[in-house]
Amino acid sequence: MNGAQALIRTLVNCGVDTCFMNPGTSEMHFVAALDDVPEMHSVLALFEGVATGAADGYARVSGKPAAVLLHLGPGLGNGLANLHNARRGHTPVVNIVGDHATYHAQYDAPLQSDIASIASAVSGWMHSATDATEVAGDAAAAIHASMQRPGQVATLILPADVCWNDAPGPAEQIGTGRGPEGVDAAAVAAAADALRSGEPAAILIGGALMRTDGLRWSASVAETTGAKLLSETFPAIMDRGAGIAPVERLAYLAEFAQMQLDGLRHLIVVGAAHPVSFFAYPGKASDLVPEGCNVVSLAAEDADLLAAMAALAEAVGADGTCTVQGSFRPERPTGALTAQTVCEALGALLPEGAVVADEGNTAGLFAPGATAGAPAHEWMCLTGGSIGYGMPVATGAGIAVKGTGRRVVNLQADGSALYTLQSLWTQAREELDVTTIILNNSSYAVLNMELARVGAEPGPKALEMLDISRPDLDFVALSKGMGVPATRATTAEEFVAQLEAALSTPGPNLVEAVIPSTL
Amino acid sequence: MNGAQALIRTLVNCGVDTCFMNPGTSEMHFVAALDDVPEMHSVLALFEGVATGAADGYARVSGKPAAVLLHLGPGLGNGLANLHNARRGHTPVVNIVGDHATYHAQYDAPLQSDIASIASAVSGWMHSATDATEVAGDAAAAIHASMQRPGQVATLILPADVCWNDAPGPAEQIGTGRGPEGVDAAAVAAAADALRSGEPAAILIGGALMRTDGLRWSASVAETTGAKLLSETFPAIMDRGAGIAPVERLAYLAEFAQMQLDGLRHLIVVGAAHPVSFFAYPGKASDLVPEGCNVVSLAAEDADLLAAMAALAEAVGADGTCTVQGSFRPERPTGALTAQTVCEALGALLPEGAVVADEGNTAGLFAPGATAGAPAHEWMCLTGGSIGYGMPVATGAGIAVKGTGRRVVNLQADGSALYTLQSLWTQAREELDVTTIILNNSSYAVLNMELARVGAEPGPKALEMLDISRPDLDFVALSKGMGVPATRATTAEEFVAQLEAALSTPGPNLVEAVIPSTL
Repeated sequence: MNGAQALIRTLVNCGVDTCFMNPGTSEMHFVAALDDVPEMHSVLALFEGVATGAADGYARVSGKPAAVLLHLGPGLGNGLANLHNARRGHTPVVNIVGDHATYHAQYDAPLQSDIASIASAVSGWMHSATDATEVAGDAAAAIHASMQRPGQVATLILPADVCWNDAPGPAEQIGTGRGPEGVDAAAVAAAADALRSGEPAAILIGGALMRTDGLRWSASVAETTGAKLLSETFPAIMDRGAGIAPVERLAYLAEFAQMQLDGLRHLIVVGAAHPVSFFAYPGKASDLVPEGCNVVSLAAEDADLLAAMAALAEAVGADGTCTVQGSFRPERPTGALTAQTVCEALGALLPEGAVVADEGNTAGLFAPGATAGAPAHEWMCLTGGSIGYGMPVATGAGIAVKGTGRRVVNLQADGSALYTLQSLWTQAREELDVTTIILNNSSYAVLNMELARVGAEPGPKALEMLDISRPDLDFVALSKGMGVPATRATTAEEFVAQLEAALSTPGPNLVEAVIPSTL
Repeated sequence: MNGAQALIRTLVNCGVDTCFMNPGTSEMHFVAALDDVPEMHSVLALFEGVATGAADGYARVSGKPAAVLLHLGPGLGNGLANLHNARRGHTPVVNIVGDHATYHAQYDAPLQSDIASIASAVSGWMHSATDATEVAGDAAAAIHASMQRPGQVATLILPADVCWNDAPGPAEQIGTGRGPEGVDAAAVAAAADALRSGEPAAILIGGALMRTDGLRWSASVAETTGAKLLSETFPAIMDRGAGIAPVERLAYLAEFAQMQLDGLRHLIVVGAAHPVSFFAYPGKASDLVPEGCNVVSLAAEDADLLAAMAALAEAVGADGTCTVQGSFRPERPTGALTAQTVCEALGALLPEGAVVADEGNTAGLFAPGATAGAPAHEWMCLTGGSIGYGMPVATGAGIAVKGTGRRVVNLQADGSALYTLQSLWTQAREELDVTTIILNNSSYAVLNMELARVGAEPGPKALEMLDISRPDLDFVALSKGMGVPATRATTAEEFVAQLEAALSTPGPNLVEAVIPSTL
């Protein structure tokens, strides 16, 4: 057994049985070893950002990490943006970066670079393997690290000779201690005091509290105490829809978020980051919490959030019952196809159990409202602000739900789609049940809005940099070029018909919605 | 005047009048300032790897740096692979990475990351701007640094408030001292002694010696002394074709490079890296120089290489004359379309003054031979081994030659094309005279070869990871989707006709050559 075989066997032993990859020469022994471990499912991506984003999406939906295999520093660079999103979303990822053989580094060959320096920007744990006899243990440590609550990117740098040299065998899984245990009693008491004060209060939740049980307990506490329930702006994944406790997400736009927080005297933060503006704007505050508001951190992001919320519930006498979302769907829209009617159609048709990868950006603003009362589903957001996440994350989600009958819906802005369009090819190869909706408004519309918000006065050259028409992108042609069938809709009726067909057709497909460039 | 206006005015004052960009919110004041500096040509890319590769290609052809504008750490990550190639090719690039406002960093907003850590892996010079009153000077320093011989990536991290705060005005260009002056007399003497020893010797050249005059002086020295003339494997840009002194490039495959170097007693290295294997292989040497061979470093990569070669010529009595390449073209091929007949067609049709971006990889192996006697042209190679360089570099070259009547030809392997396919859109928007030839063999063919070379024994799962059919990529559809007209050829006659039409049609176009997956 060589190091690569021991490593892959260890991954499978520890429950990591999916590897998204874009390998090169230094990874060839890893690739050759795939045939020795039949349980490992290897998924090829044509670009590294697809592989890293797919690993993120897979873990969000399945709850367990995938491995990624990248080719030296440049391959890591290509995958870095979606590893950044995984870092911000606290997704467990076992990130394996192939490197030159240990003895080859001294020659400064063309592909030599400082992998550790690049990886450190996204990794919660990092290790450079140096010996084939130890690499199985290194892999077990990487998996263990990736799953430390709330989840993180664990990077294992893997020299080629560590793969090809002899190894004694695979390693066993490292014990399951996943993060700080117990509940901070003083924080529970402070939060309970704040909620019982009679003053305006809100509870801001995130992470594991965005799933059905967490939402229920959080809503129960909020209803019992009269507090407002808010959540982080961009959860990695949340449960929502009919029968599930709804939650109001903190707005992306600081102006709107400040309105949500206005007048609060107490803010209980549970597994979420402190509310700050996504970007800085001249003359505007970065910290969105109103002056004089008492902020209680009930539980940090690495805590046992359900235990913390249960303790708070007990302290305020909440019994875990709450109002849940009622069932409703918009009418099937007719007439002009717009950002709004696209979202209404999605709300009218979204299948039960669907997984939505939402990178609709400005054009997707109506989507949460239009789908709020649809049958229960999962919703994924852009956690780190690095665009180009939607198509890869949908791809990884498609792997995670394959064979279950569940459909993945990727609500995808046009500009963002162009960063990782190669995802479609992997969806075709793996025959994934993913439907992509392209919101084609021929514009980086969010930047036209941001240009005004930062107080910049654009002329024609500036506006040209935000305009992605001239030439127009033809997403039907692009999709077919990648092997995914596609259609184009220019009216609401066409879009409804095409989306309905797409959602019920096995395998991947794409519907391009041509919409105006303004909301 | 704000910081952004002062910065862009400084770039133009210092001769940097082209900026490739993929901006975001933190760069909006930079974008707005473009209209205040009409001399600045701003070029939008749909993906950062296109912008960085285009800056590389622009500088290779024009001899002066372009600026790049990227959006925080993730944008830098997306552009990193082609910055790696620029680093290895010693290309001057002024790499501007937008960042959050200085005071916003403390809030750890979602897009916050360690930009410096990522940038350090590719930057020869790096600075974080902190003050709008100093940013013009920072920009002048970045330009100066980028042009230090032999050229490097200079990264300026640019917080948003440094752009929007008031600045006193632009800065002037910093003096032109570009690197170590003079010639190492002892090295010249040692090299001359070696060349006069009567023992087998070779001169290995690179960098500036790959242009017409450098080749002529190098060949003159080689002919005068009976030495073999070799060059670096992957020059950033070289002159070649009829009337120019030819040079044998050191082979990519270590086995072949060792044959080129076999039996040498002396190796004179001038502006090139020491010959090492591109990758490590089990049981094979990384250092390719034969045992006992005397290596003389005549001039390091940052030296004045022409001066060093002229001094050596004087020492050995070479007068600067040499045999030049004669004129020949292959016959227009007929019959089956293969890697070889594609390259023969290119040799038959390559226009005078063309600029070739060669990312043909395995399928392009015949191209140098088939074009050796074509009218004089420029040839660009993959300097850093990070695939996905060809289409962006061709795009930047297209900007550099725009309006001159020269054509850019991008000989492009299919797998590598998929990393930065968005280049086509920028070629269409900017109406560049770029012809892309896609060598579609449905395979990462180089990896099939490398798999054998590293001694790995592949099974079906491994081979699947190197196969990019299933589904087949349709490059004609992909190209049209990006706004570039395209045709597909399946016979040599079709390819000749389509390539001839493409080369004489203004604007960008693409010819997909469907070839067998084996040479």
